[in-house]
Amino acid sequence: MLARMPNQRDLEVGSLGERRYPSPLPMSTVPNDGVGDFVPDESRVRYDIRLPRDEANKDILLERAGARQRLFFDPPNTRAAIVTCGGLSPGLNNVIRTCFFELTVNYGIREMLGIPFGYQGLGPDSIAPPIRLTSELVEGIHHEGGTILGTSRGPQDPKVAVNFLVDKKIDILFCVGGDGTQRGAHSIATEVANRKLPIAIVGIPKTIDNDVHFCSHSFGFATAVAEAQIVIERAHTEATGVPNGVGLVKLMGREAGYIAAAATIASGDVNFTLIPEVPLTLAGSDGLLSKLQRRLDARHHAVIVVAEGAGQKLLADHTEAVDASGNRILGDIGTFLKKQITEHFTKLACPINVRYFDPSYFIRSCPASAIDSLLCERMARNAVHAGMAGKTDVLIGVWHGEYVNVPIPATLGMKKRMSPEDEMWTTVLAITGQNKW
Amino acid sequence: MLARMPNQRDLEVGSLGERRYPSPLPMSTVPNDGVGDFVPDESRVRYDIRLPRDEANKDILLERAGARQRLFFDPPNTRAAIVTCGGLSPGLNNVIRTCFFELTVNYGIREMLGIPFGYQGLGPDSIAPPIRLTSELVEGIHHEGGTILGTSRGPQDPKVAVNFLVDKKIDILFCVGGDGTQRGAHSIATEVANRKLPIAIVGIPKTIDNDVHFCSHSFGFATAVAEAQIVIERAHTEATGVPNGVGLVKLMGREAGYIAAAATIASGDVNFTLIPEVPLTLAGSDGLLSKLQRRLDARHHAVIVVAEGAGQKLLADHTEAVDASGNRILGDIGTFLKKQITEHFTKLACPINVRYFDPSYFIRSCPASAIDSLLCERMARNAVHAGMAGKTDVLIGVWHGEYVNVPIPATLGMKKRMSPEDEMWTTVLAITGQNKW
Amino acid sequence: MLARMPNQRDLEVGSLGERRYPSPLPMSTVPNDGVGDFVPDESRVRYDIRLPRDEANKDILLERAGARQRLFFDPPNTRAAIVTCGGLSPGLNNVIRTCFFELTVNYGIREMLGIPFGYQGLGPDSIAPPIRLTSELVEGIHHEGGTILGTSRGPQDPKVAVNFLVDKKIDILFCVGGDGTQRGAHSIATEVANRKLPIAIVGIPKTIDNDVHFCSHSFGFATAVAEAQIVIERAHTEATGVPNGVGLVKLMGREAGYIAAAATIASGDVNFTLIPEVPLTLAGSDGLLSKLQRRLDARHHAVIVVAEGAGQKLLADHTEAVDASGNRILGDIGTFLKKQITEHFTKLACPINVRYFDPSYFIRSCPASAIDSLLCERMARNAVHAGMAGKTDVLIGVWHGEYVNVPIPATLGMKKRMSPEDEMWTTVLAITGQNKW
Amino acid sequence: MLARMPNQRDLEVGSLGERRYPSPLPMSTVPNDGVGDFVPDESRVRYDIRLPRDEANKDILLERAGARQRLFFDPPNTRAAIVTCGGLSPGLNNVIRTCFFELTVNYGIREMLGIPFGYQGLGPDSIAPPIRLTSELVEGIHHEGGTILGTSRGPQDPKVAVNFLVDKKIDILFCVGGDGTQRGAHSIATEVANRKLPIAIVGIPKTIDNDVHFCSHSFGFATAVAEAQIVIERAHTEATGVPNGVGLVKLMGREAGYIAAAATIASGDVNFTLIPEVPLTLAGSDGLLSKLQRRLDARHHAVIVVAEGAGQKLLADHTEAVDASGNRILGDIGTFLKKQITEHFTKLACPINVRYFDPSYFIRSCPASAIDSLLCERMARNAVHAGMAGKTDVLIGVWHGEYVNVPIPATLGMKKRMSPEDEMWTTVLAITGQNKW
Repeated sequence: MLARMPNQRDLEVGSLGERRYPSPLPMSTVPNDGVGDFVPDESRVRYDIRLPRDEANKDILLERAGARQRLFFDPPNTRAAIVTCGGLSPGLNNVIRTCFFELTVNYGIREMLGIPFGYQGLGPDSIAPPIRLTSELVEGIHHEGGTILGTSRGPQDPKVAVNFLVDKKIDILFCVGGDGTQRGAHSIATEVANRKLPIAIVGIPKTIDNDVHFCSHSFGFATAVAEAQIVIERAHTEATGVPNGVGLVKLMGREAGYIAAAATIASGDVNFTLIPEVPLTLAGSDGLLSKLQRRLDARHHAVIVVAEGAGQKLLADHTEAVDASGNRILGDIGTFLKKQITEHFTKLACPINVRYFDPSYFIRSCPASAIDSLLCERMARNAVHAGMAGKTDVLIGVWHGEYVNVPIPATLGMKKRMSPEDEMWTTVLAITGQNKW
Repeated sequence: MLARMPNQRDLEVGSLGERRYPSPLPMSTVPNDGVGDFVPDESRVRYDIRLPRDEANKDILLERAGARQRLFFDPPNTRAAIVTCGGLSPGLNNVIRTCFFELTVNYGIREMLGIPFGYQGLGPDSIAPPIRLTSELVEGIHHEGGTILGTSRGPQDPKVAVNFLVDKKIDILFCVGGDGTQRGAHSIATEVANRKLPIAIVGIPKTIDNDVHFCSHSFGFATAVAEAQIVIERAHTEATGVPNGVGLVKLMGREAGYIAAAATIASGDVNFTLIPEVPLTLAGSDGLLSKLQRRLDARHHAVIVVAEGAGQKLLADHTEAVDASGNRILGDIGTFLKKQITEHFTKLACPINVRYFDPSYFIRSCPASAIDSLLCERMARNAVHAGMAGKTDVLIGVWHGEYVNVPIPATLGMKKRMSPEDEMWTTVLAITGQNKW
Repeated sequence: MLARMPNQRDLEVGSLGERRYPSPLPMSTVPNDGVGDFVPDESRVRYDIRLPRDEANKDILLERAGARQRLFFDPPNTRAAIVTCGGLSPGLNNVIRTCFFELTVNYGIREMLGIPFGYQGLGPDSIAPPIRLTSELVEGIHHEGGTILGTSRGPQDPKVAVNFLVDKKIDILFCVGGDGTQRGAHSIATEVANRKLPIAIVGIPKTIDNDVHFCSHSFGFATAVAEAQIVIERAHTEATGVPNGVGLVKLMGREAGYIAAAATIASGDVNFTLIPEVPLTLAGSDGLLSKLQRRLDARHHAVIVVAEGAGQKLLADHTEAVDASGNRILGDIGTFLKKQITEHFTKLACPINVRYFDPSYFIRSCPASAIDSLLCERMARNAVHAGMAGKTDVLIGVWHGEYVNVPIPATLGMKKRMSPEDEMWTTVLAITGQNKW
Repeated sequence: MLARMPNQRDLEVGSLGERRYPSPLPMSTVPNDGVGDFVPDESRVRYDIRLPRDEANKDILLERAGARQRLFFDPPNTRAAIVTCGGLSPGLNNVIRTCFFELTVNYGIREMLGIPFGYQGLGPDSIAPPIRLTSELVEGIHHEGGTILGTSRGPQDPKVAVNFLVDKKIDILFCVGGDGTQRGAHSIATEVANRKLPIAIVGIPKTIDNDVHFCSHSFGFATAVAEAQIVIERAHTEATGVPNGVGLVKLMGREAGYIAAAATIASGDVNFTLIPEVPLTLAGSDGLLSKLQRRLDARHHAVIVVAEGAGQKLLADHTEAVDASGNRILGDIGTFLKKQITEHFTKLACPINVRYFDPSYFIRSCPASAIDSLLCERMARNAVHAGMAGKTDVLIGVWHGEYVNVPIPATLGMKKRMSPEDEMWTTVLAITGQNKW
């Protein structure tokens, strides 16, 4: 599942140095006194929890996230900023709001800035200046989709970004985004380290595809699955409403099919699920077209869910070109499939009705569901704890239900993918029966 | 607004003949006895209710729908059938269910059949036989989108259809569909009349576009507006989330912009609304592109709603070809606009982000909203009343809030359109300010 | 249905006097020029549109609402205010927002104030001063329930209120509320008239119960029905999930059962609907308890919907006392019924499971649905048109789908009620079959 | 958190004996062959995954759930049954449906029965006979709340139940319910063992309160939190809409405050959260009433969430009596608090407006959310795997994200509770700030 295994040394979290200030949080160091405890720096979470143990990972431990008893930054003299990058994902506003309230109300820092429109906003060419966040401004934003700060794709020259942080007297920068964003955060952290500046760079993973490593569930994913389920239900209605109806739904999932798989399981109405991790064949008796034909012969309708990154090798415009975020530009597997299916059955003189759904932007711009709100809340508070403690070049993960601090470099280029042997995929096969046609 | 004005003679409703049977409904003929009254055949509703009167329509009256005291059909010996045609519209299952319960439980007819997959199901080539509807089958279907009977486009040879009705001993046929479907219903009714058969043909208008005449609100429309509002809200979130974001939403509305207009008003977040009734110009200082440019300069984001039938003359593939339902095949104004807008701003070296939403199938397959459920319920019961009374070649309309019986021929080719002088359109202009840029 | 019939003389709308200023709205006086037309003052809408005519109302005409060509107030010198009174109803924020945008953006008035917490805010004892409304403040409020201004019950001394209006230089006051609120608006308008002040008082009806006369649909009603339908669906689920389950849902409707009736029709899952307009009997073979018993014997579950004003005479604490808004204080029919039903079946040694739902506040605080948003939008714009034209002591109604200006006095004490002979009630009986058990 | 720690011996899962039949599932025993693997019986999951280790639990391991390579039951000769007990919880229908499809379609068993109305249905006094489940019957039920089988409280004599199982030739019984239900399942399993019968009893935990041990998330919980969040949002709207408004929301949570805590975190709009695990004081300067007073003085509104089991000691009717399920009968803390708060502020002559929400049945009867659907799907499939392998007296749990098989006795009387030192509770305190007033 992973390109390379983590090793313990890679998982040491960066630190800005000595922690001179006591935490103002009303917590305790005494177990069982009825007051929540600060988390000691040496607290760890096992990476691998099954037995018999996987020899490759058996001794890997992750640093537990949480409030530390002593802080690197003196709250009244601390200024923080937050930047949201990449495509929309439900929960961005929740993260902004929670970081703000935890920093200002609970830690009592001086000021928090919002950086407009992603990393672009960290430079002199920004189309807007940073905005000073206030209670009034962020009070109700968690009930809305999108991000009040705006977002954009693409990196920022780390030198320019660090100049900006110095100029604005920003002590902690929260970078909310996916693999490309965290790569940018790491480059900024590296430049900060080179200049020996006391500035913390804290990453908060945002990947609707759920493909950041050390992060079993990223925010936005649960909301995306819920919205995708509704779309699938509608596709099922369309498919059953016409003779030989085929509901074809393209979902997010560039390199990992988690959304497609989870939405399939949640829905219970899908007949074929196509993901990037499992090769797609159209032709031949074992190909999708023949299976679909047998399904339609038997049941007269079908629902197909395809992750956007599935079957890329079939596309004529298949390419390795990348966009501003460094993501490979994908061909459109959805319209390709629609065309292939229609042509196949036209040749067979079997009239079918393909209804195509491409809800990507509709899903991305949804407000966070309750479960994602919970995740955002806890991830953001742990990010604040990490930042105030002077941890840097660090990403907040969640693993086996525990929040963890992970060095950003350990996560780069390590996108999580679903193995065809994972229980999630075998559940998809069990529920769709797609290998039986 | 109308191609031709109705005249009173055109509005006489067809009848199968003498009504020999008393209605079993527990209603009264005495006002103010606390029991609802049968509607006398001579009861009318004014077509035009404003003063000063519109001279062209001043004396037009419509027949009030409702339960009649005497019936043409003897319930224990009556067999009915229902067929749903054309594209999906929220509420089809509600109509099926209510017709079934009103006919069987309240009137006590012998049996009701469901015709599969539209008019195709009225012939020997049907891919499935009619199904006998039961309480168990229809009990919960009003909470689901689509139609349990399935639907299809295209007519049926009226001779074949009438043979089928005779063969299956069907006394009343309910035809649920739009203009094309009602044209088909009329041709069946004509064939029935030619053969002097005692079979009632009752039309129930189904037009998500809300464009059937004598039907101020058709079912599915309110649901479509509600769903469209959600999509527009997401488009607004996407548009405000990126620099120079443009949310472009294509909505239903082939010849009438009611959904686009109503969704715009309901949403409050739209900046430009484009409908078939108002010509669309792209180029020039008064064209959409320049207006959009000025809007983006001022506000950095915009939301555009376009009805699918808007701006057809701009499309290279503009054609008068028609589909199986007799509807003109439209070019895709949505992707055309997306391309035009992107190219325009690319030429200007002004990077913009167009997010395109095409939620048509998503909206059509939605379950009926509460308001549409109410409408379906009352429309279906009035259809049953009309059929049991032996009215035929008749469509159930709703005008100024009153349910009416209208001869189908009076509605054919008379699609309702919005005048740019209607209050609905001036409200759109007031709310979008689109003429001010 | 009405305590007394309107007569034409009662329906003349009050006016502040000569209109010296041309309207800045981009409208026309020429039909068919493609531009929406100003509505002439003499334009009327028929009150009664059925034939044969109801002799009592046959000549009644209502003034059409809409933009007038000439204004009483000079926009750059005009200051308006809005106050929201009584209980919450979905759509209050939509009304506030639309009044603001129409007044400031389209008419170009100087300033608009929001009065905090109802009529209390129109006096020196207000717990907060008026707030100056701005685009930033109202931009997104239509997506939220409640009212950003707050509300309260109870009147204000008209002398105090008029002093306040004079002191704050308010030219137009929009009073959003039900019968009690409009009574207050009328007393303020009377005091204004006595002092010969050029101040317009414009009422916007807010009644979730849908019981304001000349207002076939008031905002909040459609949303309430939609939310109530969901609650009924859940009650149905609970009722069918246990042996002899009874889902009992209390809905709003103090004197009129519109919500209970409409939600029943929309739901399709209700077995007994109880409304204030139809007397309720519990005991005896025709009483609710025996009917429920027969229903449970036959089907083992039942859903009952009761309007809060139903069966008041059965309650021991039945009283004519009134609250601060002048509304009669109702006994709690819901818990009374729950107790009566439980006791009845306990005596019979027939164990039943009553699940009681009282969703009043849950429903009132919901954001407006799309249909209600449309209604609010158009009602608020028409209120602005009336106010700018110097109409006063006037309420915006909607009748047969047309917006109308009605003198407030003509509506006071004239609450709309549903006749048991109305088609809505006969539909309820047809769908529930409640009279058949 | 736990009354007593598990020990390894207690966690050995019961088995009916030798497994003679190969599994028909298309799975593999070879890692990395692209086909999902059967789970070996010896596979384990760590109970405690933090370091430094908790000495008490350090060596505890749980048996991994999942498909086994060899089966105890021969599918073509196997008959299963499922029973749902206790109060409704979102997801019951999903569990029924998935068990049915996994057993019949994937394992190919002979027949599956549904037991009506809980354990009552396992005896001769059942008000209805078992129903034979079919594809048609269960196809769409996962989109509906409740349980198609019905449910009830209370146990069944294990002798009677086993006679029933023998009589109906049931080989595997799935018991879906909470602590009381599992206690019943264990007593049936014990009776089966005493008679040396080859019948498997498999428990599936259903606890909307999320309080079953070895089950970090039970189905229905996520849905309940999502629904509760909506109710809280409405309560917030009501509270801010009136002067000194207090929104008081009672939520489920008899002995564990998970729903109240999670809904608080998801909502972000709660000011005081009261749970069973933290003692409640009303009077005194540190009591809730004084804190509320200070909050209202400062902010003029407040939202309070109270779990139904909180503050029971304050209630006059506090009792240790239990209901048919063996659950202690709780006093109504919600109406008690409403009364106390109202009286307190009335004494102070400070008028407040308390809006009380009691959405329990509304929430319980909701359809499962997407996340809960996923959970149900996987839990039900793992239950089927356990049953087919002949495991018995076994409950399916989920711990650190892994599905596990746990002996039912190890879970009885071990309800999970939230420690005030848990991160979830400290997050509640951080977000509400309730200890600061």
